[in-house]
Amino acid sequence: MKVSELGEFGLIDLLAKMAGGGDERLLIGIGDDAAAWRGDDSIQLASVDSFIEGVHFTPETTPWQDVGWKALAINLSDIAAMGGIPRYALVSLSLPDDTEVEDIAALYTGMLNLAKQYGVSIIGGDISRAPMVAISITILGSSPAQKILTRSSARPGETVAVTGKLGAAAAGMELLKSQRRLDPEADTRLKNAFLHPTPRIAEGLLLVEQGVKTAIDISDGLVADLSQIGKASQVGARIEVERVPVEPAVKTAFGERALELALSGGEDYELLFTASSEIVERLKKAASVPVTAIGEIVAGKGVSLVDKAGNPFKLEKAGWEHFDQR
Amino acid sequence: MKVSELGEFGLIDLLAKMAGGGDERLLIGIGDDAAAWRGDDSIQLASVDSFIEGVHFTPETTPWQDVGWKALAINLSDIAAMGGIPRYALVSLSLPDDTEVEDIAALYTGMLNLAKQYGVSIIGGDISRAPMVAISITILGSSPAQKILTRSSARPGETVAVTGKLGAAAAGMELLKSQRRLDPEADTRLKNAFLHPTPRIAEGLLLVEQGVKTAIDISDGLVADLSQIGKASQVGARIEVERVPVEPAVKTAFGERALELALSGGEDYELLFTASSEIVERLKKAASVPVTAIGEIVAGKGVSLVDKAGNPFKLEKAGWEHFDQR
Repeated sequence: MKVSELGEFGLIDLLAKMAGGGDERLLIGIGDDAAAWRGDDSIQLASVDSFIEGVHFTPETTPWQDVGWKALAINLSDIAAMGGIPRYALVSLSLPDDTEVEDIAALYTGMLNLAKQYGVSIIGGDISRAPMVAISITILGSSPAQKILTRSSARPGETVAVTGKLGAAAAGMELLKSQRRLDPEADTRLKNAFLHPTPRIAEGLLLVEQGVKTAIDISDGLVADLSQIGKASQVGARIEVERVPVEPAVKTAFGERALELALSGGEDYELLFTASSEIVERLKKAASVPVTAIGEIVAGKGVSLVDKAGNPFKLEKAGWEHFDQR
Repeated sequence: MKVSELGEFGLIDLLAKMAGGGDERLLIGIGDDAAAWRGDDSIQLASVDSFIEGVHFTPETTPWQDVGWKALAINLSDIAAMGGIPRYALVSLSLPDDTEVEDIAALYTGMLNLAKQYGVSIIGGDISRAPMVAISITILGSSPAQKILTRSSARPGETVAVTGKLGAAAAGMELLKSQRRLDPEADTRLKNAFLHPTPRIAEGLLLVEQGVKTAIDISDGLVADLSQIGKASQVGARIEVERVPVEPAVKTAFGERALELALSGGEDYELLFTASSEIVERLKKAASVPVTAIGEIVAGKGVSLVDKAGNPFKLEKAGWEHFDQR
């Protein structure tokens, strides 16, 4: 069935039914002008709206269900990078007239699968006609510890560390775009890293608990995102490239390019953080994912890359930026 | 200067500077993974992200500053329709590579002009490259009275009433699209109604204070939006078309079509509400904008239009819906 056959309100009804209720503090979810819920001291409200004009688009490498998962995952990752617990999501959808309802239902299914894993309720949003599909999600969350992770609190002498292994998402994206096939297990693992990133919510909470103050999630690439911390904190950073934890399947499949993918590929959605070496040591033991020290915060500015011998390491492209100056 | 010359982060810096700080409860505004502020009992977080692919678009009838004003106004109107006070906005921008920075600065100026009027802080957002300009705004607000206006609480026997005068926005849009010119005052008034709608925040609060439980803002059109109340409340409604308050300049300029524009034109962003006749009488005296009773809620379903003699009034098109079935 086409969206144009179901109509906007039919589609909203469908999505509201799929999103369901289930939160006893929620007063108004999908279907009113704004969402409303009981806060600690007053009713809280939230609303999102789009204002869109445009032309045409179809997703190329990502099935609709994965689009939904990923659209939500990258948002949850932002809350993880604050050391918070996500709670509510508002979803703004822009859709072409001839979008298949089944595709949007699949997209919602992907989002809801992830939302359920993290106790997130989709409480509102809006739908607009547009020339191409666009999804804008707002997440509302809170910080149980009353402490948050920011980009601006890094200090010289702190260790730079990262959760998980890097490079898999960028490798997966290249595989999805190419005709190249690896052995099935590696192929699936890398593509999945790109399609189904895992927001590091538990790890973000653990960082706060252990006294970390500074973190960012790796979306644009390790070097680019560390530069963001450096800029916000007015410090520099040095990474020893051999210490960067590269996903083994990336090394196998991409050889010498693996390190470049880990340093600048982006979309891994791991947490990049700075803390004292003692805290990083404690985290290595406490975390259920690998935690690896990869360098340190220094006075000055900029991110420098060095090899084992301390010599500068040259990187072709530091990361991904919208409106890149090329 | 082109966005591509300034770069994403340069643009974020610019917008963060324009949005400024100024809220003492705000911990993190634009520039981190999520926005954070002290709530009543815990830190609150919010984040928005876009996920967009597409093609090309340019605004036709609306200067950039007005785009910004209107994009925010339609969101504030949603909070008004809940009887709430808007507090924070998150702005998701999708922009083509060759967008002029000046245009986006103008857009932000328009938003900030309105935001300041209503004490709203823009506390976050994201920017993506896209084939056309898209703006998705999330508003966070609260209800000081701990009571909200919903769509689902209308009861048979209640009076249907509306704030302000209707039809001006739709008339203004037609004028903007045509070569037709009215006398300068009427021309400006109608175009302004379309470009610069006023969210009825104070009126929404007044409705709650006076005991109103049911409201919606008129975005799709009087009849279409009243249908939404009817559907959510499982009731019908009858409108006496002669009682509908039509903006005088619309009558002058559009003659017989004025009523149609008022009934189905939409985008007036007035509040449409239901309440006892006593409450509506009190509101007529207490409100600083006109409040007009235009019909009543009845058992059953659907919105019927009648003329003075009680005969059915036929309307060509009830309102505007995305993905309309035509």
